[in-house]
Amino acid sequence: MPKVGIVMGSDSDLKVMSKAAAMLEKLGVDYEMTIISAHRMPETFFEWAKAAEGKGIKVIIAGAGMAAHLPGMCAALFPMPVIGVPMSGKHLAGEDALFSIVQMPPGIPVATVAIDGGMNGAILAAKILATSDSDLLERLKAYSAEMEETVQKKADKLAEIGYEAYINSQGK
Amino acid sequence: MPKVGIVMGSDSDLKVMSKAAAMLEKLGVDYEMTIISAHRMPETFFEWAKAAEGKGIKVIIAGAGMAAHLPGMCAALFPMPVIGVPMSGKHLAGEDALFSIVQMPPGIPVATVAIDGGMNGAILAAKILATSDSDLLERLKAYSAEMEETVQKKADKLAEIGYEAYINSQGK
Amino acid sequence: MPKVGIVMGSDSDLKVMSKAAAMLEKLGVDYEMTIISAHRMPETFFEWAKAAEGKGIKVIIAGAGMAAHLPGMCAALFPMPVIGVPMSGKHLAGEDALFSIVQMPPGIPVATVAIDGGMNGAILAAKILATSDSDLLERLKAYSAEMEETVQKKADKLAEIGYEAYINSQGK
Amino acid sequence: MPKVGIVMGSDSDLKVMSKAAAMLEKLGVDYEMTIISAHRMPETFFEWAKAAEGKGIKVIIAGAGMAAHLPGMCAALFPMPVIGVPMSGKHLAGEDALFSIVQMPPGIPVATVAIDGGMNGAILAAKILATSDSDLLERLKAYSAEMEETVQKKADKLAEIGYEAYINSQGK
Amino acid sequence: MPKVGIVMGSDSDLKVMSKAAAMLEKLGVDYEMTIISAHRMPETFFEWAKAAEGKGIKVIIAGAGMAAHLPGMCAALFPMPVIGVPMSGKHLAGEDALFSIVQMPPGIPVATVAIDGGMNGAILAAKILATSDSDLLERLKAYSAEMEETVQKKADKLAEIGYEAYINSQGK
Amino acid sequence: MPKVGIVMGSDSDLKVMSKAAAMLEKLGVDYEMTIISAHRMPETFFEWAKAAEGKGIKVIIAGAGMAAHLPGMCAALFPMPVIGVPMSGKHLAGEDALFSIVQMPPGIPVATVAIDGGMNGAILAAKILATSDSDLLERLKAYSAEMEETVQKKADKLAEIGYEAYINSQGK
Amino acid sequence: MPKVGIVMGSDSDLKVMSKAAAMLEKLGVDYEMTIISAHRMPETFFEWAKAAEGKGIKVIIAGAGMAAHLPGMCAALFPMPVIGVPMSGKHLAGEDALFSIVQMPPGIPVATVAIDGGMNGAILAAKILATSDSDLLERLKAYSAEMEETVQKKADKLAEIGYEAYINSQGK
Amino acid sequence: MPKVGIVMGSDSDLKVMSKAAAMLEKLGVDYEMTIISAHRMPETFFEWAKAAEGKGIKVIIAGAGMAAHLPGMCAALFPMPVIGVPMSGKHLAGEDALFSIVQMPPGIPVATVAIDGGMNGAILAAKILATSDSDLLERLKAYSAEMEETVQKKADKLAEIGYEAYINSQGK
Repeated sequence: MPKVGIVMGSDSDLKVMSKAAAMLEKLGVDYEMTIISAHRMPETFFEWAKAAEGKGIKVIIAGAGMAAHLPGMCAALFPMPVIGVPMSGKHLAGEDALFSIVQMPPGIPVATVAIDGGMNGAILAAKILATSDSDLLERLKAYSAEMEETVQKKADKLAEIGYEAYINSQGK
Repeated sequence: MPKVGIVMGSDSDLKVMSKAAAMLEKLGVDYEMTIISAHRMPETFFEWAKAAEGKGIKVIIAGAGMAAHLPGMCAALFPMPVIGVPMSGKHLAGEDALFSIVQMPPGIPVATVAIDGGMNGAILAAKILATSDSDLLERLKAYSAEMEETVQKKADKLAEIGYEAYINSQGK
Repeated sequence: MPKVGIVMGSDSDLKVMSKAAAMLEKLGVDYEMTIISAHRMPETFFEWAKAAEGKGIKVIIAGAGMAAHLPGMCAALFPMPVIGVPMSGKHLAGEDALFSIVQMPPGIPVATVAIDGGMNGAILAAKILATSDSDLLERLKAYSAEMEETVQKKADKLAEIGYEAYINSQGK
Repeated sequence: MPKVGIVMGSDSDLKVMSKAAAMLEKLGVDYEMTIISAHRMPETFFEWAKAAEGKGIKVIIAGAGMAAHLPGMCAALFPMPVIGVPMSGKHLAGEDALFSIVQMPPGIPVATVAIDGGMNGAILAAKILATSDSDLLERLKAYSAEMEETVQKKADKLAEIGYEAYINSQGK
Repeated sequence: MPKVGIVMGSDSDLKVMSKAAAMLEKLGVDYEMTIISAHRMPETFFEWAKAAEGKGIKVIIAGAGMAAHLPGMCAALFPMPVIGVPMSGKHLAGEDALFSIVQMPPGIPVATVAIDGGMNGAILAAKILATSDSDLLERLKAYSAEMEETVQKKADKLAEIGYEAYINSQGK
Repeated sequence: MPKVGIVMGSDSDLKVMSKAAAMLEKLGVDYEMTIISAHRMPETFFEWAKAAEGKGIKVIIAGAGMAAHLPGMCAALFPMPVIGVPMSGKHLAGEDALFSIVQMPPGIPVATVAIDGGMNGAILAAKILATSDSDLLERLKAYSAEMEETVQKKADKLAEIGYEAYINSQGK
Repeated sequence: MPKVGIVMGSDSDLKVMSKAAAMLEKLGVDYEMTIISAHRMPETFFEWAKAAEGKGIKVIIAGAGMAAHLPGMCAALFPMPVIGVPMSGKHLAGEDALFSIVQMPPGIPVATVAIDGGMNGAILAAKILATSDSDLLERLKAYSAEMEETVQKKADKLAEIGYEAYINSQGK
Repeated sequence: MPKVGIVMGSDSDLKVMSKAAAMLEKLGVDYEMTIISAHRMPETFFEWAKAAEGKGIKVIIAGAGMAAHLPGMCAALFPMPVIGVPMSGKHLAGEDALFSIVQMPPGIPVATVAIDGGMNGAILAAKILATSDSDLLERLKAYSAEMEETVQKKADKLAEIGYEAYINSQGK
């Protein structure tokens, strides 16, 4: 039974949103993922958003670009947290999707993460579920330790081989 | 029977949107005006947007601020033109509502006017109806002539009294 | 007899504006399309804009970039709706053309669509004509159904093959 | 025992952040609220953020302005969700705090709400806790119904008295 | 016979543009000043811009706000320099008028000065005329010396009375 | 004897500024062109700017990027018009150079043209000189006619071959 | 003998820059403060900037607004650190001065602090001098402790009297 | 014994920050360089920042992108100057890192340099140390002379071979 619903407005968002799916898998969180356009199929969208709670979904991660209405409309219809992932587009340096998602009016918040931050959307969803799931909380702490170790290894490598060799090892 | 539907997300938008109503009255265009929040009452909103065509409405003028989803969601549900009026807020210099309204994805345009441009929303609605209403077109042309005359009178006044007297006459 | 006039300031805008032409063809709307620079040939532009009504044109779609004055000057000379398509340029993230088109002063609205939104300009023009053309309205509704079906197929494909296979199928 | 920790960098943030406290009270959620500057008292901040989990805190709401580091540094030290509230300042139209909070790097998300969105920060915190608290979820649904009713009453009032009387009733 | 034409789109620009007139008077440069809206009276505007050269005008100073087309359209019709003064408005922090004026396409430059820079528009016009008027050049050099002296006096005052007394002397 | 001085802060600006030189050649205006950094060689820069008037220079075209101080410092030292050409850089979408050049304080205007607008800088310089050179004015009018003809030919070509063939003829 | 030179382009900057003077006094650092416009008195400015080293000045704090060239030109002429304080103006949300100061080209850095950050300019200057003055370093550490104590007292007050009483005590 | 500590949040910053290292080497300044993420390893970061003074470090150069908290948190923990280098990212045109670094609150300045300005960070660090190291000051002056000579050679080359040959010599 899915705990998290991942939804995006277009398959052009899939590359970013699949990182959310992959991270939930890594953290052992069940999810469902689909493509629904709030603008192109409003009735289907309405049904999906209203049915989510009944399916056991506790958190929705919604990704959208440009005039990104999908996360906000999810938040209008789903009573638990909605996480918004602004998709970068070709224009306006990403501000259009960011402002369209984060500037929600009083009463209807969307938990907004960084532009193209699909992976962070999943980590935030897991942190939300971890407020009542101590096993998941332990897995999140293990993931944090893993991140720390990864950076430490990079620091050690830099200390060992120097910046010129390090940059060369990074390729182009 | 109303030809134009004016809708806004909050009564804080009424000062700007009432200028749309007043201009439609001046141009002799029937309208209805209401307050519906797409975020706070999504079902009522859906019903209203889907019922609009059946009531004879040909154009919707939708005003909203911040993460302004109302115009775009109207455009998803109503098959004829939707005009979006971005409302200025306290932050981001008005860019949040503007980008949330104008940057609609392919297939679902919103006819966006200037920030706080309630009056222009009504003139655009009238121009749309005037594509099939030659009497309204004449009234629009008369309004244009009136605007021209107003500016001409200001130019004449400036020529007559000079800039110092003119500025004094403008008050603070 | 053309119902829509498509005009652009430079042939560098043609790639975007041709999408407007193609969409009007798809929707069965007659149009004419030309290149006229308001800055480089102001007299020719004036003649064209003033003659448009007499040729039967009901809507103008004007595309321009940078300090984009073409849509606004059309709106000063043509009494029915003018749709503005801001062209992205190399600098300022597209804000120059967008602000130059959408921020029209009271009395002279331009119906602005998204940056590089040529196709949406055409759909908006068709929606405007559909306020008095029920056949065209039906074709627009059929197009909406088609868009919905396209997204639904993508959702079905994602459900069927999973995100990894889907992303691989998208190519680079 | 507090479930939510509200923290702000300066008492100039208190007017906004107290709305978070008031909303949590309305929704029946226990909280603690304090002022800690990550820049001016980093050690105290560290101790507070690391002790939060042990005190039973499940969600932190952190408000900060300018180069707003407080929410992100909370997210570095606290394993469950951190909600960031960007405070508007005198310059840069609020973009400095918004970008400093929302653009967190991969691995360390902050759930960002609108600029000065203290009340929405609290609602989001309650929604997070409601993923495992069905009573709270009911109270949130009741609050949504209340919001809907409030807008409906405004719509009814507008229909009844018209826009001129309504605007007059709004005062200055 | 006027050497400089000052034109603005609205009498709301008069406070800023009158500073151009006052500076030209101070520098002893003949000018004419009027209000013409390129959008509301395009034919009158066309006549005015095309007649300017014949009246002896060598430079036009054009002020406009929002989607500021007046300076650029002057530059399309008048063969000598056009100076554009972007007017600040209520939204977009002044970027709309600035971008609409400065981002002219290749071939049609507008000499843009700072937002609300009416006085600088006049000084620039005088500098242009001074390229062939050595008396005016001397008056401009005298004005520069005067400016320098003014700042020097402020520096002397600060040195003499200290910053606290100086600030008190500035009033609120 | 040069009438126009072209100066740039770095040879990375040469590609854009050489368009100014080429246009002055086309218009038959004598110029000199050099590279001087106001930041890296302030004394040389001072000498150059103060010597310009004595060499017969009537207009300076100064191009600079990032914190572009070269045009403004020229305007502080040279008594006739200074034209500023903002160079686009890698960051901030070109706003850094544009704001650094156009937002000059009262008394010291810089005639700012579009970002990377080297050619327009030259045309503006020629227009300035044409205020006292009727032959140059004629050459500028001829250039305008040439531009108009170029656009007209493109319009004719589009009318003749249609948009698909036209786009194919544009290459990638 | 002054260790720090405080310079500003206009006496309108004095309110902000006097905070730098007051903080240097508090920290026991000798300074001189003056008003010099790089644009209006370039020669005086040159002399001042080149003479600074000889007077014993080790750090310059330069405040300027709009197209703020003063800090960058100081950095071109003075071999030790220059701190830039961007002054907010009426337009562009403070971005003009910030970008004009911070975006210096390679080789000529300006140490930029926050918009209107006069006090921080002084603290940074003191920190620079403290790299070779252990007494000053101790005074800086004492100031840090003082800041921490101030925030702690606010936190204690909030804990004691609650947010409603606290807000009331803040006045309007 | 290192005088300068270079720190960055990720090895993706190494290409820019290695320019700081290379410049310090050129100027003969001892440094240490490492990778520490304030978000991913807050305790290690705390230890490093607090230990820096004891190791003899007088200046920290901290590079970070997105919600760049590393420089500001260094400034909270290290009592001498911290230089911040904003890293450009993929979105928001570099404004996110710039605003997150420069807009520090009163009391805790960060000396901010240009976006991706790693080399300038090092020159600023050297200028800070040169306030008490006359040999280093001489080396900085020699470096300035070298920069001047480099530009002068480019000016000479342009004078000698002309702009076409020069551009060709620049390659693509």
